[in-house]
Amino acid sequence: MHVQVISSVNEACSANFHHKTAIVIDVLRATSTIVTALAAGAASIVPAETVMDAKSLQWPEDLLGGERFCRKIAGFDLGNSPKEYSENTVRGRRIIVTTTNGTRAIHKSTKADHVIAASLLNGEAAAKYALELRRDVVLLCAGSHDEFAIEDGLCAGLLIEELIKQHHDTVEVDDFGQAMHALYRDRSPWILRTLLQSQSGKRLVKLGLKEDVEDCAHMNTLDAVPFLLGERLILR
Amino acid sequence: MHVQVISSVNEACSANFHHKTAIVIDVLRATSTIVTALAAGAASIVPAETVMDAKSLQWPEDLLGGERFCRKIAGFDLGNSPKEYSENTVRGRRIIVTTTNGTRAIHKSTKADHVIAASLLNGEAAAKYALELRRDVVLLCAGSHDEFAIEDGLCAGLLIEELIKQHHDTVEVDDFGQAMHALYRDRSPWILRTLLQSQSGKRLVKLGLKEDVEDCAHMNTLDAVPFLLGERLILR
Repeated sequence: MHVQVISSVNEACSANFHHKTAIVIDVLRATSTIVTALAAGAASIVPAETVMDAKSLQWPEDLLGGERFCRKIAGFDLGNSPKEYSENTVRGRRIIVTTTNGTRAIHKSTKADHVIAASLLNGEAAAKYALELRRDVVLLCAGSHDEFAIEDGLCAGLLIEELIKQHHDTVEVDDFGQAMHALYRDRSPWILRTLLQSQSGKRLVKLGLKEDVEDCAHMNTLDAVPFLLGERLILR
Repeated sequence: MHVQVISSVNEACSANFHHKTAIVIDVLRATSTIVTALAAGAASIVPAETVMDAKSLQWPEDLLGGERFCRKIAGFDLGNSPKEYSENTVRGRRIIVTTTNGTRAIHKSTKADHVIAASLLNGEAAAKYALELRRDVVLLCAGSHDEFAIEDGLCAGLLIEELIKQHHDTVEVDDFGQAMHALYRDRSPWILRTLLQSQSGKRLVKLGLKEDVEDCAHMNTLDAVPFLLGERLILR
């Protein structure tokens, strides 16, 4: 199995995804929130690229969620904080979500045979599912402001750790993936500290959203693995 | 002091370099070879972007060096192996060098206030010199085939380690730099192994150039710091 890691959504092109399983990572906060919402019983998540797309996709019973500049969008039901997506709020609902990087990354990877969403919360489960799909894997770190974000790299490293642990044959990892695996090995005892020191983490703390960073820093606490079926993410 | 790391020459644009010190890194092999050549007494190194440029820059006493597809260029005096640039061969000579990634990276960074060349061989000395220049620093990893190369990231991590160690005030490192610093901390006990497992390292071993990889894997063995003065690299 071959594993490639793409450093930010800007670096991705369609050719990267052909015949592969894409794992989209946006730890702060889109994929953490999507995993949390589906684990809490949301029926499905529909990633939308723009605010207008999100609004046009909404049916009467749907919720609208997401952010621009880290803030809830005017007129939307929910922002991009995992804690907003509680069972009481989301159970059985379809949720249309648009975020700056995460949902863009999902749209970029639709040429893949399979698309799944991963975060630190469901890293182990996502790796296990990717192995069942029996394709080469491309890990797409969404990044932030078109640049690499360390929390996404850390999650890529966690996924590589789990792929290597669970795979019986050889896992071939590209140079960038090897670097992210080393990053994970170095930082895994200090996950929360790393997230708080990251550019995205500092931005969220400044906006009073430190609790979100804490909520996204738990490792392997959820078994939920969102995968893309047509236009929507559902649980496997 | 702010430190930014660029993952490959493809990612660099002029705006990255304004008012900064650029440190260009191509561990396998251009900057390792350039450092070795100047430490062995070469008068200067002139980086050329193309084979034609190199030939047109040559004066009668000059040597021509470099590679295409990791091989010595037809009609050139020297390839891109550090061991070819011995004192006997290079003392007092101006050498025109063209390589696939390293010399391109030097040309890309000429908008910087200062440009210096670093490798694992002279990491500590290069960091010390960068601190004397009192500018924010951008580390440009040359990469290979327009992609990130782990050996360059490892060297960026070594430079960050040295900058933090030697600087008395705060060194602010961007997310990618923090990841490279973690990579260095994780891999520093196994530098040669990491280079041999890298894509570039494997390519060189296949071509019978394992000794080059070994020669480039020594850390902080040279005090030579090449810096760009006009069109040529000379020792500080």
